[in-house]
Amino acid sequence: MLYSKLFGKTKKDSKKYDSANATYLIKAGFIDQVMAGVYTYLPLGLRVLNKIENIIREEMNEIGDEVYMPSLTPQALWEQTGRLETVDVLMKTVPANKFALAKHSSEYILNPTHEEVVVPLGQKFNLSYKDFPFALYQIQSKFRNEPRVKSGLLRGREFRMKDLYSFHISIEDFKKYYEKSKEVYFKVFERLGLKDDTVIVLASGGSFTDDYSHEFQTFCETGEDVIFFAKSKNVYYNREVAPSLAPKIVENDKEMLPKKDVLGKGIIGVRELANFLKIPVEKTTKTLIFETDDNRVIAVAIRGGYNINEDKLRKIVKCKTLKFASAETVKKMTGAEVGYAGILNLPREVEIFFDESAANRLNFECGANKTNYHSVNVNFGRDLPIPKKFYDIKMAKEGDLFPETKEVYQVKKAAEVGNIFPLYTKFTDAFEYKFIDQEGKQQPIYMGCYGIGPSRIMGVIVEKFNDEKGIIWPKSVAPFQVHLIGLDLKEESVKKKVYQVYQALEKHKIEVLFDDREEVTAGNKFSDADLIGIPVRLVVSKRTGEKIEFKKRNGKKSEVMSFENVLKKLSE
Amino acid sequence: MLYSKLFGKTKKDSKKYDSANATYLIKAGFIDQVMAGVYTYLPLGLRVLNKIENIIREEMNEIGDEVYMPSLTPQALWEQTGRLETVDVLMKTVPANKFALAKHSSEYILNPTHEEVVVPLGQKFNLSYKDFPFALYQIQSKFRNEPRVKSGLLRGREFRMKDLYSFHISIEDFKKYYEKSKEVYFKVFERLGLKDDTVIVLASGGSFTDDYSHEFQTFCETGEDVIFFAKSKNVYYNREVAPSLAPKIVENDKEMLPKKDVLGKGIIGVRELANFLKIPVEKTTKTLIFETDDNRVIAVAIRGGYNINEDKLRKIVKCKTLKFASAETVKKMTGAEVGYAGILNLPREVEIFFDESAANRLNFECGANKTNYHSVNVNFGRDLPIPKKFYDIKMAKEGDLFPETKEVYQVKKAAEVGNIFPLYTKFTDAFEYKFIDQEGKQQPIYMGCYGIGPSRIMGVIVEKFNDEKGIIWPKSVAPFQVHLIGLDLKEESVKKKVYQVYQALEKHKIEVLFDDREEVTAGNKFSDADLIGIPVRLVVSKRTGEKIEFKKRNGKKSEVMSFENVLKKLSE
Repeated sequence: MLYSKLFGKTKKDSKKYDSANATYLIKAGFIDQVMAGVYTYLPLGLRVLNKIENIIREEMNEIGDEVYMPSLTPQALWEQTGRLETVDVLMKTVPANKFALAKHSSEYILNPTHEEVVVPLGQKFNLSYKDFPFALYQIQSKFRNEPRVKSGLLRGREFRMKDLYSFHISIEDFKKYYEKSKEVYFKVFERLGLKDDTVIVLASGGSFTDDYSHEFQTFCETGEDVIFFAKSKNVYYNREVAPSLAPKIVENDKEMLPKKDVLGKGIIGVRELANFLKIPVEKTTKTLIFETDDNRVIAVAIRGGYNINEDKLRKIVKCKTLKFASAETVKKMTGAEVGYAGILNLPREVEIFFDESAANRLNFECGANKTNYHSVNVNFGRDLPIPKKFYDIKMAKEGDLFPETKEVYQVKKAAEVGNIFPLYTKFTDAFEYKFIDQEGKQQPIYMGCYGIGPSRIMGVIVEKFNDEKGIIWPKSVAPFQVHLIGLDLKEESVKKKVYQVYQALEKHKIEVLFDDREEVTAGNKFSDADLIGIPVRLVVSKRTGEKIEFKKRNGKKSEVMSFENVLKKLSE
Repeated sequence: MLYSKLFGKTKKDSKKYDSANATYLIKAGFIDQVMAGVYTYLPLGLRVLNKIENIIREEMNEIGDEVYMPSLTPQALWEQTGRLETVDVLMKTVPANKFALAKHSSEYILNPTHEEVVVPLGQKFNLSYKDFPFALYQIQSKFRNEPRVKSGLLRGREFRMKDLYSFHISIEDFKKYYEKSKEVYFKVFERLGLKDDTVIVLASGGSFTDDYSHEFQTFCETGEDVIFFAKSKNVYYNREVAPSLAPKIVENDKEMLPKKDVLGKGIIGVRELANFLKIPVEKTTKTLIFETDDNRVIAVAIRGGYNINEDKLRKIVKCKTLKFASAETVKKMTGAEVGYAGILNLPREVEIFFDESAANRLNFECGANKTNYHSVNVNFGRDLPIPKKFYDIKMAKEGDLFPETKEVYQVKKAAEVGNIFPLYTKFTDAFEYKFIDQEGKQQPIYMGCYGIGPSRIMGVIVEKFNDEKGIIWPKSVAPFQVHLIGLDLKEESVKKKVYQVYQALEKHKIEVLFDDREEVTAGNKFSDADLIGIPVRLVVSKRTGEKIEFKKRNGKKSEVMSFENVLKKLSE
């Protein structure tokens, strides 16, 4: 392809976005931002996206059949699973103006995921045990009502997705397939050049199961996820589910001091409070009051500096949903305004759950359950009973220990490039999709779902493979294999030579982007080539004569060689 | 591919839909209806769709660069062109529930077409005359707020679309490209097997121009469009723009009879009125009162049995928009309730436009401008002046004449498979997108847009190529080239032979669907093969021995031959 004819050339401006992938992909002419989180793929970018999607497609064909489900779906299907009213990334379509409204007023769901379509689909065709297992997948654009779009292609409102759904007649068969899918995923990441930096991370299995789901996370500084690695067990946790022990505090006190209540009006943040009371943050205690869906009011006590992990809490408290207690309830239960709740003298009906970080401290602080007052020098066994049990209710943070081995977690940032999810019978039950066994009886169907985001992967690849000059595409997804530059094109013999090389490369089916521009300087052509990041750069100029300069984008040295040797190097 | 492993087998039920394409594509397992006008493409259907799209892509690559624009777009872009409030097929997205609303409340347009995206895109990259001409295209799912979905894939709410947009610095260059695009389109239709039945039809150019747009219409009984063909000039018009002359009426009256007003309360439909008055329908006259956007009130008189073509009327009246006058205005202008308006004694300010169908009649009827009364035996030159001019304001109907040659139109039904549209500067002006000429001056940019609907084409192909047994796919888009059937699979030698044939076909890169099912009867396998419609059926059975039975789907006879001869026949 002639670069002079390509739509979407490199940009001169040096606008920096919040991530390398946004900055480079926009500057190099791969994508164009239509609005935050929504992009057009320009010819160069579409070539990369297609290569990524085709690699995924080839591997998925080993474990499933490709279909193409619609984006629009009746709301009734989402009502059936109970997700219409609960999924906060869900969007629906409505007529855009009064003429449209007069014409047709129906509203449809714009799918962010397709369980609500694929389960009724399976149900229409596959009912006998003989039809199982089966798996369907698709690659298409998905839509999410996303407030925090950021990091270029890493988090968008419209993005490309491969989603596969598998159906099984036994848990064992499901689990076998689930393990197989991990292998297939790693084959995909290997072909995309991401395998070495990609790991399987345990993540939340959702509210309907205690099982983990599995994320494929690629280490990446601009990634959104924080991964906790317990090296001795070779296990990675997403922060949201990482079990954790707080590191022991350095205890300087030797004995219990007299408890007292201190006036500290409006001092609520733990750091501010610690400064005010002249105690370490670790000696402060956060007490939070929650209401559960089964109408209990509970209190949680956790060491200052930590946050509650609501998923952990929900499982400990054994409830479906939780919310912070209203100011009214807090007042009624603690006798104080919000911000001064503590663990002393709470009504018996309020069960207190202690995080283990709150244990093993002498003379700690907590809210006084008296507006504007904080109790200090509080001690278990004297001011209140020693709790029967301490739990892990906190959001893990850097410095925390892996409970099983007590080793300090290694903490890394990463971007999720795929995830697989055991759904068991959650969705098949919702649609009453059962199979008929050999005895003619209806039996439950077990499901898994398996996602990979091709557009996000495009972003992650740029995050991983770039330098200060631009992108360095892995060969498997590069828009072209060769970036051919012609210099000194005013000289007829050079011009003739470079067009010969171009045609010869095309004849050998080598994907080549030929910078044939006559009015652009050598310097600009070189910097454009580095920015665009095609694996091999070839130069034909007065200086190279009958030969060709060969340079790898990720190499330092260039070599001058014959066309035959270029071909040989390219096939290596 | 093994048919036993394929998701989406043929259905036993004989449910008939409103069109052959819906009936056969659903029954044969190509598509599944998620809701009216919205389908899932099953593995077989997706193969066909991909083949159609790849043929389109290959041809479009000759005249444009492929990109992929998003479906979601900020409303501001649609405000800029004034289409946000006027396009009645436009949908927007809103949060689907209260949690989604709390999270992110923005609303976005879900694009049914992409002028609002592609023009600002061009503007970001191509500004110099040197950058022109250029053309961008994409193939993707589009969304329309469509009230009357019908005919399977022919009219949907979500459908596949190829849309190309071209940009030019002169009208001449635009027109040259426009003509070139017609050739490219016919190459596409040729490859799809539709060329012989596809014609270019003149259609409306939109309100902003007197030019026609051009539709590619494939003759098809289930098509929605009605095409008027003037054979001697070899020109096709879409009904909506067909110029027309009403056939002369057979005049039995010899002389003018005395005009009189007849009481006919509540008799408003022309057929009912003609019966009541005992006159031919052709002697009745419809008088319709309109208000224009520039505040004129006008009357239109047309022979009974015809409808007004508002596009024609708007151009004659020279206004932007028209609407039926309110009952109040009708009363004020005619003195009568709606339904009794006529052409006699209207106020001078109400200009009357006569359709030519209302001319050359003796003793015709019209409303009496008196509630409940109709005037009969009305005559030009006696009861009112002979109109200075008669116009063509009617919607053409079967039997009408082509004005230029006075020949009777041939009228055919057709399905639109593509359309091309001169946009000129409508959208580039809206975004103030100009190019810089050689003198450094800003100049207007001329645009065209060019659509083809791959999913609709899939439907049209089935409408055209089927028989009472099922689909008959053209080779170029067939899901597989060969449908291999194994019979008598209980016999080990036969089973071995058919699997050998299957593997040999795959080795020769022949796309083969192998019906390997053991529990299905020969009859069912044959009828499934006919329903699915793959071009060649091969059978291996006890009877064929070492040979293979070869039969074309669109042929009557089968032949038994060696594998080598099968290969030879397949390559013909």
